[in-house]
Amino acid sequence: MPFEILILGSGAATPTFNRNCSAQYLTICGTQVLIDCGESTQNQIRKYHKKFQTIKAIFISHLHGDHFFGLPGLISTMHLCGRTEPLTVYAPKGARESLMLLFEVSGTELRFELTINEIDTLEPVEIHHDKNFRVVAFPLHHSLPTYGFVFEEFTPLLNLRPNVREQYGMSNDECVRVKQGEDLVLADGTVVPNVELTFPPVKPRRYAYCCDTAYDESIIPVVAGVDLLCMESTFGRAFEQLAKDRCHCTAAQAASIALQAGAGKLILTHFSARFIDTTPLLAEARSVFANTECAADGAIFKIENQQEQL
Amino acid sequence: MPFEILILGSGAATPTFNRNCSAQYLTICGTQVLIDCGESTQNQIRKYHKKFQTIKAIFISHLHGDHFFGLPGLISTMHLCGRTEPLTVYAPKGARESLMLLFEVSGTELRFELTINEIDTLEPVEIHHDKNFRVVAFPLHHSLPTYGFVFEEFTPLLNLRPNVREQYGMSNDECVRVKQGEDLVLADGTVVPNVELTFPPVKPRRYAYCCDTAYDESIIPVVAGVDLLCMESTFGRAFEQLAKDRCHCTAAQAASIALQAGAGKLILTHFSARFIDTTPLLAEARSVFANTECAADGAIFKIENQQEQL
Repeated sequence: MPFEILILGSGAATPTFNRNCSAQYLTICGTQVLIDCGESTQNQIRKYHKKFQTIKAIFISHLHGDHFFGLPGLISTMHLCGRTEPLTVYAPKGARESLMLLFEVSGTELRFELTINEIDTLEPVEIHHDKNFRVVAFPLHHSLPTYGFVFEEFTPLLNLRPNVREQYGMSNDECVRVKQGEDLVLADGTVVPNVELTFPPVKPRRYAYCCDTAYDESIIPVVAGVDLLCMESTFGRAFEQLAKDRCHCTAAQAASIALQAGAGKLILTHFSARFIDTTPLLAEARSVFANTECAADGAIFKIENQQEQL
Repeated sequence: MPFEILILGSGAATPTFNRNCSAQYLTICGTQVLIDCGESTQNQIRKYHKKFQTIKAIFISHLHGDHFFGLPGLISTMHLCGRTEPLTVYAPKGARESLMLLFEVSGTELRFELTINEIDTLEPVEIHHDKNFRVVAFPLHHSLPTYGFVFEEFTPLLNLRPNVREQYGMSNDECVRVKQGEDLVLADGTVVPNVELTFPPVKPRRYAYCCDTAYDESIIPVVAGVDLLCMESTFGRAFEQLAKDRCHCTAAQAASIALQAGAGKLILTHFSARFIDTTPLLAEARSVFANTECAADGAIFKIENQQEQL
């Protein structure tokens, strides 16, 4: 199953010719979700040939316009294009009231079930629990209530070693129980230890999204060991004071979080419009944490499966 | 002075690859105003190399998302880019409350004066009065309170005939009074009739915007004789019943209004996404009113000055 992040918008605050406002289209365990929804996100979804009707849930980090103002239009378009499937939105307080008012004044009576779950927590908390993955929200340090998200696959079942099923004449029920970790008890009472029957499945993958936030080491335990960490990098080192004043990060600070968290890879995003060329930001981050890439609108980042060792 | 309409969005309801939602950038008497502001209008303004900070006023026809949902983002970007000049928005009731709530939840404290004048009228009424032009709003027939707009230059001063100033030794004050239509009284008491001193100025130009609306002949007196009439044409003749049900116009109906109103020229806009090729709609309209064009994103329509006859 692919675990894939399509960058729909990698700019900060105001859109530019090359960077739309924040949004990411995430495919996880066969499910599509959206992270943030700046203005014109629906156009970006079309531009990059993705489907908006298959989006099951939308996670809004905070209510600054560049992360939120595309949501009324996207939901309205879902409605006008005949959506009937339910949609769940997770967003900070204020989202429900403002969306409902916009739908009221625009005469929009949705024909599908829209659930808006408002996030309000000072600690990491599981906000979404799907069949195969879960999402944890945790507070970031920004000028408005803002949350980061960790998207985490569940540990899959163990895999049966080749031919053990035939060798022991295992029933379907026995296969399921062994995959769940049980030993196998044969008809004559012999116990075959689970470790002789199975090998570990692929490693569950984790993706963390932290945007917008000031440099804040308190998030490190929450994002520790993620395969992919997306951090805002509105500024570079030269603007460190400005970053602090505006509750944003520099590239070096983002990289420092990735390093301390032991992330597999770092993506920088949410670049101030002043950085037409982000190469210096990339170099700055790589001097701290080598495995860093810059987001660009349309870029795709995949987390590949890693087989646990036999 | 150019009188020019740049089409920023010519699509209906939902944006497509080629047509953004409704918005027009109007230059009149050296002033820039915006008509409607569907989502992503700020991107369209950038795309077509226009300035958003010089926009003095914004006229919103109605609060359907495809005419209104770009406004919070545009105003927010004006603010973030340092605007200090006041801005006036004219829009139906509900605009103020929803904009204020969005700015509140997004922590947007504007550094410029935003005046929101809500339109609520059953008759044509002058809503905006600038130095050189005025704007009249009038009700349209749609599923929400919706208004059309006529943008109208004031009648300019008369022009002095060549050399009369020197011939009669006219002072500045006398020039102004003669341009305003007075006769000239010479020192010896001789009266020089105004008609011998002046010729008529250019004809004041008028542009009418009617979107969205069902076919409704009651608007004809209001838009009678406009140089340029922009009418919605969401559908074609084949969808006449659908157009009626949804309070929209067909191309032929739009053309019929133009014909009955004696408009100089007709622009069709607000095309349903089903019309990738609008040629049939254009043909349908031209069979009723020959001087018709279809709007396209990025198209510019100019109203040229016409000198009154000497």
